[in-house]
Amino acid sequence: MSPKITTELLKQLRQVMKNPRYVQEPVQAYIVPSGDAHQSEYIAPCDCRRAFISGFDGSAGTAIITEQHAAMWTDGRYFLQAAHQMDSNWTLMKMGLKDTPTQEDWLVSVLPEGSKVGVDPFIIPADQWKRMSKALRSAGHDLVPVKENLINTIWTDCPQRPCKPLITLDLSYTGVSWRDKIVALRSKMAERKVMWFVVTALDEVAWLFNLRGSDVEYNPVFFAYAVIGMNTIRLFIDGDRMMDPAVRDHLQLDSTLEPEFKIQVMPYGSILSELQAVGAGLSPKEKVWLSDKASYALTEAIPKAYRYLTPYTPICIAKAVKNAAETEGMRRAHIKDAVALCELFNWLEKEVPKGTVTEIVAADKAEEFRSQQKDFVELSFATISSTGPNGAIIHYKPVPETNRTLSVNEIYLLDSGAQYKDGTTDVTRTMHFGTPSAYEKECFTYVLKGHIAVSAAIFPNGTKGHLLDSFARSALWDCGLDYLHGTGHGVGSFLNVHEGPCGISYKTFADEPLEAGMIVSDEPGYYEDGSFGIRIENVVLVIPAETKYNFKNRGSLTFEPLTLVPIQTKMIDVNLLTEKECNWVNEYHQKCREVVGAELERQGRHEALRWLLRETEPLARVQ
Amino acid sequence: MSPKITTELLKQLRQVMKNPRYVQEPVQAYIVPSGDAHQSEYIAPCDCRRAFISGFDGSAGTAIITEQHAAMWTDGRYFLQAAHQMDSNWTLMKMGLKDTPTQEDWLVSVLPEGSKVGVDPFIIPADQWKRMSKALRSAGHDLVPVKENLINTIWTDCPQRPCKPLITLDLSYTGVSWRDKIVALRSKMAERKVMWFVVTALDEVAWLFNLRGSDVEYNPVFFAYAVIGMNTIRLFIDGDRMMDPAVRDHLQLDSTLEPEFKIQVMPYGSILSELQAVGAGLSPKEKVWLSDKASYALTEAIPKAYRYLTPYTPICIAKAVKNAAETEGMRRAHIKDAVALCELFNWLEKEVPKGTVTEIVAADKAEEFRSQQKDFVELSFATISSTGPNGAIIHYKPVPETNRTLSVNEIYLLDSGAQYKDGTTDVTRTMHFGTPSAYEKECFTYVLKGHIAVSAAIFPNGTKGHLLDSFARSALWDCGLDYLHGTGHGVGSFLNVHEGPCGISYKTFADEPLEAGMIVSDEPGYYEDGSFGIRIENVVLVIPAETKYNFKNRGSLTFEPLTLVPIQTKMIDVNLLTEKECNWVNEYHQKCREVVGAELERQGRHEALRWLLRETEPLARVQ
Repeated sequence: MSPKITTELLKQLRQVMKNPRYVQEPVQAYIVPSGDAHQSEYIAPCDCRRAFISGFDGSAGTAIITEQHAAMWTDGRYFLQAAHQMDSNWTLMKMGLKDTPTQEDWLVSVLPEGSKVGVDPFIIPADQWKRMSKALRSAGHDLVPVKENLINTIWTDCPQRPCKPLITLDLSYTGVSWRDKIVALRSKMAERKVMWFVVTALDEVAWLFNLRGSDVEYNPVFFAYAVIGMNTIRLFIDGDRMMDPAVRDHLQLDSTLEPEFKIQVMPYGSILSELQAVGAGLSPKEKVWLSDKASYALTEAIPKAYRYLTPYTPICIAKAVKNAAETEGMRRAHIKDAVALCELFNWLEKEVPKGTVTEIVAADKAEEFRSQQKDFVELSFATISSTGPNGAIIHYKPVPETNRTLSVNEIYLLDSGAQYKDGTTDVTRTMHFGTPSAYEKECFTYVLKGHIAVSAAIFPNGTKGHLLDSFARSALWDCGLDYLHGTGHGVGSFLNVHEGPCGISYKTFADEPLEAGMIVSDEPGYYEDGSFGIRIENVVLVIPAETKYNFKNRGSLTFEPLTLVPIQTKMIDVNLLTEKECNWVNEYHQKCREVVGAELERQGRHEALRWLLRETEPLARVQ
Repeated sequence: MSPKITTELLKQLRQVMKNPRYVQEPVQAYIVPSGDAHQSEYIAPCDCRRAFISGFDGSAGTAIITEQHAAMWTDGRYFLQAAHQMDSNWTLMKMGLKDTPTQEDWLVSVLPEGSKVGVDPFIIPADQWKRMSKALRSAGHDLVPVKENLINTIWTDCPQRPCKPLITLDLSYTGVSWRDKIVALRSKMAERKVMWFVVTALDEVAWLFNLRGSDVEYNPVFFAYAVIGMNTIRLFIDGDRMMDPAVRDHLQLDSTLEPEFKIQVMPYGSILSELQAVGAGLSPKEKVWLSDKASYALTEAIPKAYRYLTPYTPICIAKAVKNAAETEGMRRAHIKDAVALCELFNWLEKEVPKGTVTEIVAADKAEEFRSQQKDFVELSFATISSTGPNGAIIHYKPVPETNRTLSVNEIYLLDSGAQYKDGTTDVTRTMHFGTPSAYEKECFTYVLKGHIAVSAAIFPNGTKGHLLDSFARSALWDCGLDYLHGTGHGVGSFLNVHEGPCGISYKTFADEPLEAGMIVSDEPGYYEDGSFGIRIENVVLVIPAETKYNFKNRGSLTFEPLTLVPIQTKMIDVNLLTEKECNWVNEYHQKCREVVGAELERQGRHEALRWLLRETEPLARVQ
């Protein structure tokens, strides 16, 4: 891929940074964060402002443009991709490396005295605003909200904000009605003595009302806010989506309801003024609950004394703990997903030696097989279909310029997933269609050992996921190897493939404790720039563990893999596995055989079934 | 031990809380933190205010007294001890348990509206003040500094602040002169563009000037502050200690020196007014560097805009990385310490069956053997000599009321250490002088597996210690067991046995990365209330590790045990060890034999040598 040429765009941006039509006073720096007004990770095309200005379109990154400089902060997953996509106007700031300055420190080092740093107050989360504003102020600069988004002023062909039809989910999928979710939320509000709760994250709005949308690719969400009072429900949403009889019926918009369950539908754009009105009408001690990641603009709408900010909202926490209906749905979705991948890998095994399968062809084929499954909606993220050196680009997405042909000489890494109406999947398998080298097998086996160490870990109730991260790295560390990303993220139930508040990463400390019913990914990896990438990822469910003893009656937890796709035994150096690890692989493969085998049989996919049986032969350890 | 009766004291305290002689306005609550004006963990008798008012004398705990309540917050190490030492006036707040309120939340729940909460501004660290003040203010209360310490007003027989002679350490012990330390500090100050650095922690003053004292039991420190400017050095210290010719010579007080190395000696009590004078004389951009744990009183002496606060000071970080002279000193100290313990355990093995050895006798005997070693100064903490159920009291100290007799039927846990002029030791061994039960051996072996998992861990340069904590727990977790304390702490070099900024604990996230030369303890445990305690502790040195590969050229680290005392093989269930763990034990014991054996031989301690040889016979694993 060739970098985006941004010289002209940066020139234009630097002009509007001084243009009194847009800024009260000139700003010497302008921050372009990744997110949208809902602090989403995946965003609609109209919100891809950072990609527009820089060319770098990874899922995480913050651009800062000053009069002299343009710099991009991103993390280890994207170092290579960002370097490829940005032209020489840009400096790449590699987060997580020792010598990389923070955005604040860098700004202080490059700005002239008494500078103004602008940012769109709807895009920057309140907690980031606070941190950055404080750091800048202490160095004599000012962070200022710029009402009109300056990227939008130069983005002449900016696409429209999407407004697609909604999907209603009944109890068989959600397990709990939206009314009961509102009741539970109000009881949490009463516990904390707050009168209002502002729902700003798109997946939280979708989860709360048991609705799904398709405004954002891969994430079944729709643009909306909600404000829940103890006796009122306000839903801020645009378009004619509320005219759909199924939606009206689902939300009981035309029924005679107790007033506290009557949903008032309001225009999406009116959230700020409505929230300001709420803020102005508060009596002493009436608090308003917001995520501390809500936008600065909405947070400021509530006078400071009335704000109740928490890192995780009660919806975020409730959503993370899947109920029986959701768990069963996730199980079904993962079985269907495994069927599709067995078909794919069987097909690849036959086709790759012919030299006609490119990364894009393979990704498309994966989507084709998935789309044949019941209740398939769309992919859950852009398929990472990468072979050879492309595998080392952790969040690689094949495009024509980089598209490599799969061969029997290179490792192939496929990280893919789908949205089904009953669940969300996310699975990575690393395969070799020829004969892997001893070194490739060695590295693969260390990654597998790490994967198993997490998946089979037993830990006390109340343990935070970050305490498990080192388990995934231990085998790699022993040989001087490592990987520069976290080990796991929360996974939604027919919702975002990345969700809080739990995960498995050395980078966070503020994650919520794991509890039974939570679903996370387990995905250690190993990457060699310029040669190959290895990752083994399952989605796993937190379940109670039976243990010999039970210290302080705390109880223990462990994981059950929901993903049931064979791990290529050809890539395993069995002699590096312990007996316990070897048994884990064999038991996992036995379960794949039984559960996915039965579904392949039912669907009459006999060739894929034969592939599955062949790929799940037990490993034999040499003693 | 029977609890301290505090009814009368609490009544007196509640009176002075309203007495206009001491408080401008009545305070409805008074906080009594653990520390002294230097935020020390170990404190002088005159600073044991929390123990005086409550009876609880563990090393960590905060008391809060309101008009109606008296509550004590402490952590898992002290739940049992605090419960034993406090009378029914007190409520024990078990930190770390889910339902325990924070001090702030509890205050808000019990205080009448608009209350004032008092605290001694010299005792409360600035970061705690800030957090608590904010929480109270948002609930309509006020945290107020009370100049006169209210405990002192009712503590009629409060002991005098100690003022003992100083010890000077030459280059053979410290490796770096105090002048060179000042030069290095000033270069760190220049890097951060600060003009002044305030040394508030006692061990930092001692380390900086290569002096030691004995004002605080177990910690070779002395009451002093220092204020280092780019061209000035001020040392705040009382008594005639500066009249000692050795000290005068060491500090070159009577030499003609470049002015920037001339030490101005000032009275200890003048620190606040001197610092206020510094604060008043600052030009714009002249910053003053303080630890964010410095007292609120000293922090407030510097106007906010001029403060530069960090969680760890440059002295704290430099002090943690031991140089060659310090490392060699620590090695020597640990060999001498092992000699003493070999003597002790050999003696115990003979004496325990007679039924005459109590916990106190054993502790005294340990001190006796240690005091026979060269350069012995004192113990490094109160010896934890505990048998049977007393072993489950994690920071137990035997007193006549609780003193149990060692027997062949109970586990004995000895956690002890000493200050030698060349180094500080801290070692825990858990022994059985009869025949341990299968269950005791099982638990011991899990703890041993955790100890080895940390000690043998290989991890990348730049890894923080908290990422290793779970390794110590994994074997226990597998069986549903755990322990409620961290796994390791930094250890000083003839300094405090607990020091920052590194450690191995699930509780902290702000530790500094481990680097070669740092020294920490590795001490997992397992405790059953009412029956026994197990802990295996070595002090270990961070050293570079040789690895097969070297990802991103980061380099790897591992640990080398400095403690060389046999781990009782009788307590090990060999069948629960992996081959690798078994080899670790055998190699460790081989090193004990060689290194400590040679020293026992040299000292002519032949019986203890025979004991060592017997106790370090290799384990044989049944295949």
